Amino acid sequence: MTSSGGGAARAGGETVTGRVFSILEAFDHDHPHLTLTEIARAAALPVSTAHRLVGELAGWGALERGADGAYRIGLRLWEVGSLAPRSVGLRERAMPFLEDLYEATRQNVQLAVRDGHEGVYVERLAHPEAVRLYSRIGGRWPLHGTGVGQVLLAFAPPVVQESVLAGPLTAFTPRTITDPTTLRRVLAAVRRDGVAVCDGLIDLAALSVAAPVRGESDGVVAALSVVVPSPTGPGGIEPRTLVPAVRAAARGISRALGAPTPRLRA
Amino acid sequence: MTSSGGGAARAGGETVTGRVFSILEAFDHDHPHLTLTEIARAAALPVSTAHRLVGELAGWGALERGADGAYRIGLRLWEVGSLAPRSVGLRERAMPFLEDLYEATRQNVQLAVRDGHEGVYVERLAHPEAVRLYSRIGGRWPLHGTGVGQVLLAFAPPVVQESVLAGPLTAFTPRTITDPTTLRRVLAAVRRDGVAVCDGLIDLAALSVAAPVRGESDGVVAALSVVVPSPTGPGGIEPRTLVPAVRAAARGISRALGAPTPRLRA
Repeated sequence: MTSSGGGAARAGGETVTGRVFSILEAFDHDHPHLTLTEIARAAALPVSTAHRLVGELAGWGALERGADGAYRIGLRLWEVGSLAPRSVGLRERAMPFLEDLYEATRQNVQLAVRDGHEGVYVERLAHPEAVRLYSRIGGRWPLHGTGVGQVLLAFAPPVVQESVLAGPLTAFTPRTITDPTTLRRVLAAVRRDGVAVCDGLIDLAALSVAAPVRGESDGVVAALSVVVPSPTGPGGIEPRTLVPAVRAAARGISRALGAPTPRLRA
Repeated sequence: MTSSGGGAARAGGETVTGRVFSILEAFDHDHPHLTLTEIARAAALPVSTAHRLVGELAGWGALERGADGAYRIGLRLWEVGSLAPRSVGLRERAMPFLEDLYEATRQNVQLAVRDGHEGVYVERLAHPEAVRLYSRIGGRWPLHGTGVGQVLLAFAPPVVQESVLAGPLTAFTPRTITDPTTLRRVLAAVRRDGVAVCDGLIDLAALSVAAPVRGESDGVVAALSVVVPSPTGPGGIEPRTLVPAVRAAARGISRALGAPTPRLRA
């Protein structure tokens, strides 16, 4: 969490804007409801300052106050955020293909975009009987740890790749790739094959098959994946059986986004 | 759009917060990309002020600058907005039931919550071959004009109902209910039947069947609808055939949200 408050009463718009952001950042998936005192503490603001800013945020609808007196993120903020082209706009155009893939596989289907060194999940269709997912909509995972992340990283600008390869590469399971040389080789394979197959990188029980989604300029703008039980475990699924469906769906979304007709790959 | 700027350099956090909101509100579905000059004009701010605040918003990720130099709403704002309990949280728990309804009907399925006098669409599964929808995710419609809106209004606090009935009740088609007495009677029927059937209120070609979704305290927290071709037009569908499926899905979502077991209705 970044915080620009720190309790000191500084003048100027930058400080107020920073304080507003630090209040919004006090909320996360594990802390969806916060009292005024909790907000002030998390944002490192005096309670009086937090009180005034929270009032302004609530007045606009960026925060909502519940019957319990605690605050939560307001619907209005989500509405404005839904205008982000990489969120609902992308998701809307991808949805028919995600639906088809979900119905065809009865597994988990995910769509993610890159933000810095992380993949952000903009859609997730989780089949009730499929393997448990650790992702959630609006959530993030480091690029090196997931199928969609490996795809997004493989097609990211070289400066981003080098920065991620420079580490640290956190291990989530014993199978997470934490060696930069190995990761570099894996990324080259993803570029060559147009698909990433990741077995047990975040959860030993789960395997992910991911493919790149291209936009108008033919650049990779998102990644699509299906997450299924690992073939090393009970009810496991052979990734080979999923690759054509994932690739086809990714190409369908790319076409819907106006990408040039993709080259045929072996 | 509200604007607190107006060009005058006022001191105090309220003004800065208000300016930030007026910048965010410059963006809408028809204006997803704006130049700095356009933002300044829409937010009624001097370009220098807009420049500074837009820079701060972009630094945090609330805005993103495209290759064309124009700004758009940033992924970061959508991420924070996704923490709103009435957006992604509600949608996640509703999704399996929405999916089932979508698959069973091959039509359009919508989930909306009330914000003031409007319904806000938090999910929309639009079948490619189904009747065209005028709604969009994160979009709004007046309560009296839609199926989900009538349900949300029928179960809204009396003060909200009276305020909407006091008008004005905008006509979207010749069939939109604009007479308060008629609307009052319709709302009573929705409460009695636990379902709203709206034919041609927004689009003469579309019929909507909507039902209430209840939360933990048994209050109505959302409304679910299926939108199909009007039976008065080509390919029309008899609403009777949809009522049980819509009601069952709404009850399923209510149960998932922790609502008490609903009373059986005739």
